[in-house]
Amino acid sequence: MAVVAKWMCDRDNAMFDNKKDADAYDKMLELAENLTELLQKHIPSANEKEAEDFGILLARNKELLVQACKGKVEALEEVSAEPSNVTTLAANG
Amino acid sequence: MAVVAKWMCDRDNAMFDNKKDADAYDKMLELAENLTELLQKHIPSANEKEAEDFGILLARNKELLVQACKGKVEALEEVSAEPSNVTTLAANG
Repeated sequence: MAVVAKWMCDRDNAMFDNKKDADAYDKMLELAENLTELLQKHIPSANEKEAEDFGILLARNKELLVQACKGKVEALEEVSAEPSNVTTLAANG
Repeated sequence: MAVVAKWMCDRDNAMFDNKKDADAYDKMLELAENLTELLQKHIPSANEKEAEDFGILLARNKELLVQACKGKVEALEEVSAEPSNVTTLAANG
């Protein structure tokens, strides 16, 4: 039988078929963690789970966030909780 | 005596010497309001004042936010509450 390379993101053990997707996912989680950290620093009232989910939500929708910052503010209305093009193995298993 | 044109942002009556600064300020507040709205939708636990301040903080630092979304995540560490280059009349009165 053959052996096949898999790529695991060590932030949450998500598995990927290729390095490119794994890197993109890892980068997204890094952005999410930093956004959550910034948010918790400035909004002590926000509970941890919601702050984490919001960091991930923004990171998953970073293209829309960039568009909004560049002037197309209505892009924020398209921000949604569905995973963007970065899918983990489990999602497409 | 001469009469001088002033530009007022009708979101909070901030006054400006020129239209360009007034427009930039108005755009920043629009982005801030939309970010706050998105945040309150996803973080019901966040109190209103903190959510508003955080929306303004992100909007004032939108260039850093864009850099972070484009991969330079450490740019978020530079996000600060000091007003960015957009200053109102009162600030430089």
